Amino acid sequence: MIARCRKLSVFSEDTNGLRRTFLSPPMREVHKEFARWMEALGVQVRVDAVGNIRGFYPAADANAPRLLIGSHLDTVPNAGAFDGILGVVLGIALLEELHPKRLPFGIEVAGFSEEEGVRFGKPFIGSRALVGRLDEELLSAVDGQGIRVRDAIQKFGLDPAEIPNAKLSDDTLAYLEFHIEQGPVLEKLGKSLAAVEGIAGQSRIEVIFFGRANHAGTTPMNLRHDALAGAAEWIGAVERSACETAGLVATVGKIEAKPGATNVIAGEARLSLDVRHGSDAIRAQAVEELLGNAEQIAQQRRLFVRTAALLEQRAVAMNSFLVGEIERAIAKAGCEPHRMVSGAGHDAMILAEKVPSAMIFLRTPGGISHDPAESVAVEDVEKAIACGVKLLEQLAASPEFCKRAAT
Amino acid sequence: MIARCRKLSVFSEDTNGLRRTFLSPPMREVHKEFARWMEALGVQVRVDAVGNIRGFYPAADANAPRLLIGSHLDTVPNAGAFDGILGVVLGIALLEELHPKRLPFGIEVAGFSEEEGVRFGKPFIGSRALVGRLDEELLSAVDGQGIRVRDAIQKFGLDPAEIPNAKLSDDTLAYLEFHIEQGPVLEKLGKSLAAVEGIAGQSRIEVIFFGRANHAGTTPMNLRHDALAGAAEWIGAVERSACETAGLVATVGKIEAKPGATNVIAGEARLSLDVRHGSDAIRAQAVEELLGNAEQIAQQRRLFVRTAALLEQRAVAMNSFLVGEIERAIAKAGCEPHRMVSGAGHDAMILAEKVPSAMIFLRTPGGISHDPAESVAVEDVEKAIACGVKLLEQLAASPEFCKRAAT
Repeated sequence: MIARCRKLSVFSEDTNGLRRTFLSPPMREVHKEFARWMEALGVQVRVDAVGNIRGFYPAADANAPRLLIGSHLDTVPNAGAFDGILGVVLGIALLEELHPKRLPFGIEVAGFSEEEGVRFGKPFIGSRALVGRLDEELLSAVDGQGIRVRDAIQKFGLDPAEIPNAKLSDDTLAYLEFHIEQGPVLEKLGKSLAAVEGIAGQSRIEVIFFGRANHAGTTPMNLRHDALAGAAEWIGAVERSACETAGLVATVGKIEAKPGATNVIAGEARLSLDVRHGSDAIRAQAVEELLGNAEQIAQQRRLFVRTAALLEQRAVAMNSFLVGEIERAIAKAGCEPHRMVSGAGHDAMILAEKVPSAMIFLRTPGGISHDPAESVAVEDVEKAIACGVKLLEQLAASPEFCKRAAT
Repeated sequence: MIARCRKLSVFSEDTNGLRRTFLSPPMREVHKEFARWMEALGVQVRVDAVGNIRGFYPAADANAPRLLIGSHLDTVPNAGAFDGILGVVLGIALLEELHPKRLPFGIEVAGFSEEEGVRFGKPFIGSRALVGRLDEELLSAVDGQGIRVRDAIQKFGLDPAEIPNAKLSDDTLAYLEFHIEQGPVLEKLGKSLAAVEGIAGQSRIEVIFFGRANHAGTTPMNLRHDALAGAAEWIGAVERSACETAGLVATVGKIEAKPGATNVIAGEARLSLDVRHGSDAIRAQAVEELLGNAEQIAQQRRLFVRTAALLEQRAVAMNSFLVGEIERAIAKAGCEPHRMVSGAGHDAMILAEKVPSAMIFLRTPGGISHDPAESVAVEDVEKAIACGVKLLEQLAASPEFCKRAAT
C-alpha cells in the first residue's frame, strides 16, 4: 500500500515535488491506476461528473445497501505521498482482503477529486458533489487562470449536467475514511490508530491593534502607544488560555506590524487568530474570552482594537455507533484504542451531513504532513488493514447496522 | 520664521507632499531664497561642492574666528515643513537680530544638503563634507536611478574636485544647531526648549526565533514549538527591561512570521531590535541582557534563536561648556531649562568630531515629525530666537570661548 502511494505521488503538475490539484492532467493517471487495481477484482469503476473515481464491489444480494469508503486524491503544493490518497488505497486493500467473499452490504470505494481547496480556494468540491452541495456559485468560481469550475470539468472531458448523478446512492449505510493523523498525538502516545469521534469546530478572526506610530529614538517608553507591544502581550494571553483548556488549540500564525521599520514604533499590528475545539460551546467561550483579553490589553495600553470574524465552522460529531465499532476493531487488530477529535477538516465532515460517518487515523511520524517528508510506518498500515477487516466483519455481523437506511 | 519654513516647503520633488532629497531640482529654489535673505544683510553666500549653502557674517575683526550655526535642507518623503530647515532659518533670524552689530567672532550659517539619507541610503553627506569624511566609497554610492553621488554633484553644476574646499574653516570655534525635538518629551513637560547634552548611541539587531511550523488544528498546545509565541514573550521582556532603565528606549518595530498563514503555527519569527541610550555602557548592558532573555525564552520553549548585529553607533556627547551656556540662555529667554539626550541622529553628531558642538531642541506638538502634520508653535520659535540672541551675547562676552581654537 505504501508502494502504491509512492507510485501515485509521481503523478504531479510540478516536476519538482508533488502538486496535484482538482482535475489537473496527472489526475487522469491516478484514475487509471485505481481503475486497474479495482478492475482486477471485477469491480465496476466510473469517474463521476466532478472527477471522483468510484468503484462498486457488490454485496451477496443485489438489493443490499452499501458502505462507502473513501478519501481524496488531490494534494497541496509540495505535498507528501499519503495525505488523502492512503485512505483510498486502503479502501482497495480492504476489497483485496475480502475478494472474492461477499458481505451483506456492497462496498463503494470513492477517491474524491478535490478536498484541499488549492485550485479554486474552495475545499471539498469532490465530496460536496456526493451530498448535493455543488451550487451555481461554486461552479462559477475561477482559478488563477480565470477558468471556472464548470469549464475545468468540461476541459477534463466530463459533463457538468451529470453532476446530480454524482450524488450518494440512497442505499448508502455509512461513510468510513482512513486518513493520516497529520499531527503528533498518536506518536506521542505510542499508538498506531485512533477512532475519530469528531471534527473540531473552528473560528478564524482578524484582530487589529491600533496605536500611534512614532520615532523609536525620540519617544520615551512611557509616552508610547506601541501596537506591536500590545499585540505581543495578547499573543501570550492566547497561548496561556489555550493551555488551560483541555482540547483547545488557539494559534496566532500571521502578524504584520505597520509601518514595519526598525526605527519606528508600530502604529498598527494585524494578527490572525485560529481557535478550534470539538465542542462549539467551549470554542465560543474561548473566543469571547480572548477578544475580551484583547480589549483589556488595548485599554490598559491606550490602544484601540478591532476584530473581524472571518470564518465560523461548527464542530461535526462522528457517528457514535461507528466510533465504538472502530474502537473494538482497533483492539481486535492488537492495538490499544484511542479516541480523538480531528483538528483539521476532512471529507467525513461533508459526508456526515447525509450518512453516519466516522474516521480512523493512522499515526503520522513527527506529525509531519503537507511536506515531502510526510510518511507512514509499514506496521501502522498493516494495523489499519487488520482493523478495517475486523470492522467489516463486525458491521456485517450487525443486523442493526445492515438495516440502517441512509438519512 | 514659520512662514519662511512654510514657503520653502513648497519646493518639492513631489506635487503631492514634500520630498526634497540631496541635490534634487527644488534644492536650487531653496538656495535662492536663503541667498536672498542673507544677501539682504550683506552676507557673502556660496554653495559648496556638495550643495551646502553657506553664508558668512563677519566679525568686528577680520582675523577673528567664527561660530558655525546650521542644520539641513533635505527632507524625507511626505515630510513636514520644519525638520532641519527651521534650524537654518533660525540661524538667519539670529543674523537679522544682530545686524548690523558685529561680534568678536564671525557667524557662518550652513544649510546642509543632505542629512536624511533618503536618496543614496547614506545620511549626513552634507555635514560629512565639512569634517572631511566624504571618501571614494561614498562618492561612488548610487541612487535608485543608478546615478553616483559624484555624478549627482556634477549634474547639479558643482565640481567634485572642489569637495576639499567644503571643509570646515580652521578658525571655527564651535557648532550650534537648532532643531525640532521630533518627540513628545518637551510637550509632556510643558517646556519650550531643551539643551541637548548628547546624542544617543544606537544598536540595531536582527533576532530570529526558529521553531517548527505545524498544523494549527492538529498540533496540541503542549507539543508546539511556536516561534511567534516565543517572539511575543520576548517583545514583552524588551519592553519591561526598557521601562526599568532610565533613559533607555528599546523597540521592536518589525516582525515577520513564517510561513505566515492563519492555520499554520509559525516555524520562524524574525524581529528587529532598536536600542538607544546616552551612555554606551548602559546600552551595551541592555543589549546583552535582552539577547540573554531571548536565549532563555528559546531554551524554555525548545526554540532556537539567532541574532545578528546590524548597526552599532556610539553615543556622541555635546560640549559641556556650550550645553551649560545654552541652559543659561534658555533661562534668560524666560524658559525653564531642560537637559535631554537626543534619541535621533543629527548633523551635530558629525560636526562634534571636529569642533565643540551643541544643540537646542524646540518643543514639537504631539511629537509629530516626518509627517505633513509636523508643526511648531510661534511662541516656541520666539523663545528659540530670544535664547539664541542671549547665547550669542554670552559667548561674545566669554574670553574663554572666543580664544578657543578648532581642534
